[in-house]
Amino acid sequence: MTDKKKLLVIALGGNALLDSKSKGTIEEREAAAADTAEQLIPLFNSTVYDVILTHGNGPQVGNLLIQQEEGSSKVPPMPLDVCVAETQGEIGYILQKAIQNAFEKHNIKKSTIAMLTQVLVDEKDPAFEKPSKPVGPYYSADQTREILKIKNWKFKEDPAGKGFRRVVASPKPIKVIQTQIISDLTKDGYIVISVGGGGIPVYHDKNNDIAGVEAVIDKDLASAQLAIDLKADKFVILTNVEQCYINFRQPNEIKLTDLNLDEATTYYDQGHFTAGSMGPKVQSVIEFVSATGNHAIITHITKLVDSLEGKAGTLIHL
Amino acid sequence: MTDKKKLLVIALGGNALLDSKSKGTIEEREAAAADTAEQLIPLFNSTVYDVILTHGNGPQVGNLLIQQEEGSSKVPPMPLDVCVAETQGEIGYILQKAIQNAFEKHNIKKSTIAMLTQVLVDEKDPAFEKPSKPVGPYYSADQTREILKIKNWKFKEDPAGKGFRRVVASPKPIKVIQTQIISDLTKDGYIVISVGGGGIPVYHDKNNDIAGVEAVIDKDLASAQLAIDLKADKFVILTNVEQCYINFRQPNEIKLTDLNLDEATTYYDQGHFTAGSMGPKVQSVIEFVSATGNHAIITHITKLVDSLEGKAGTLIHL
Repeated sequence: MTDKKKLLVIALGGNALLDSKSKGTIEEREAAAADTAEQLIPLFNSTVYDVILTHGNGPQVGNLLIQQEEGSSKVPPMPLDVCVAETQGEIGYILQKAIQNAFEKHNIKKSTIAMLTQVLVDEKDPAFEKPSKPVGPYYSADQTREILKIKNWKFKEDPAGKGFRRVVASPKPIKVIQTQIISDLTKDGYIVISVGGGGIPVYHDKNNDIAGVEAVIDKDLASAQLAIDLKADKFVILTNVEQCYINFRQPNEIKLTDLNLDEATTYYDQGHFTAGSMGPKVQSVIEFVSATGNHAIITHITKLVDSLEGKAGTLIHL
Repeated sequence: MTDKKKLLVIALGGNALLDSKSKGTIEEREAAAADTAEQLIPLFNSTVYDVILTHGNGPQVGNLLIQQEEGSSKVPPMPLDVCVAETQGEIGYILQKAIQNAFEKHNIKKSTIAMLTQVLVDEKDPAFEKPSKPVGPYYSADQTREILKIKNWKFKEDPAGKGFRRVVASPKPIKVIQTQIISDLTKDGYIVISVGGGGIPVYHDKNNDIAGVEAVIDKDLASAQLAIDLKADKFVILTNVEQCYINFRQPNEIKLTDLNLDEATTYYDQGHFTAGSMGPKVQSVIEFVSATGNHAIITHITKLVDSLEGKAGTLIHL
């Protein structure tokens, strides 16, 4: 089957699936997913684009880690790679269902598939030397001492004094293991939901087996890697602001509507984009644009269609 | 792409993924999955069969429900449909990884895909009137009274006096929503892992939207429905015994090696097969054989290859 459409990879932010201010009830999650599906309808209906969706899992994996910790005297907790897989199940299902219902409502004859996705990392990635990404619940100093007797975890004290949190490595994604099938299914007309939570982190162990690793992969970097390997025509990161800024929330704040690669790199190097927030998003689009020469956009989901028409968002190009 | 192979649907029992006597640590799960993948190699290598895998989730969803309950003061628990989705993530990933590694070891050039799978049920299914399937942790009488103030759950007292357990409906599967894509991917040469835990239970709500429902679907019945709709050439249920018996564990116990539909139905109606165990397996193969006229097998994974050659297991036919 040949396919002449342009390929568009869209990375959905956590807030597209669960507002960070909400508690995370099923009603809140389903409402957020339904909103997101509705906003994406113009693209699902598009004759111009084939769309691939990826998504984050921050609040969801946080909740799961708390549940695991609370139940740990009765049930063996799973390692972080398995937890990411669980959230791919949870979020993939909720998002898929919302999209199916939006298709039905708008009489769109398409199907979605939500697939488990592994992402390869390098066990020698320097990130494993300096775990920095906080995950899961807060612990007291006493609790961390107890945990360290049985587990090889690292902890970091919360600057606001809420206690200690486990920190894990956030290694660089090398390859989305399921890239080929994502491509095949997209060409066949399916809307594929994949790379949930940045993907299940795996590496090649000493027997060259695929093995899980306790880490989290940035979902924007993993999505960029997928977009690069698929030579996507466009890569869009949806987040909670309509565009990027320099001097964000300062008197000399400037909205960025159009950036070439040099400008984006300069602002990134100058530290205008927060680590763990806009930073990895800008890094991801820089990697995509450098590798493919194609356009990338950072915007809010409500501005997605306008952004694709050049009327909103931050466009990053060569 | 045309495909002349025979289609074989294999339903893996929970014990193929997690021994019911184990605690459910990740090491136990990965070892069980690796064993299962190794046992399936002759079929993945087969020039005769295309293989589709389905699997249970009993112990895994039980553990997840305990974790959710223990964490419920801090994190909103998810409804049962979402929990099934989470276990599809967890088990699908572990099984997929084991199969990838077995492919690599045996130099098999195939890929697996683990997909989230919804299964349609009827909200008017009589099972919803009489919830009977126990799920999740044991509660005291006091705890059940507290829960009933806020939730519309049903409880049943454990006959062995361990307390009360929530009981949910186990409605009949009508259709695996992802049937078409499972078929497409299998024809394209992928090993598809789907219908985990009997599938995520969904129904058409009053707006005709797909909505989740708090129920569990028997994984053998759901797998049989998939096999029927795909007109599979053979349907195999793998379990913890090598074949079915009548008068099981009694002095007049008889091994069943070959049953026609009439015999199977008669023994089933006579109550030879335990509810919640061999009962639904025999019911599932009866449904498959009646609908398709093709052969079904119930056996242990170690006898799978022999069973396909007619040397082991219980064969059920017209």
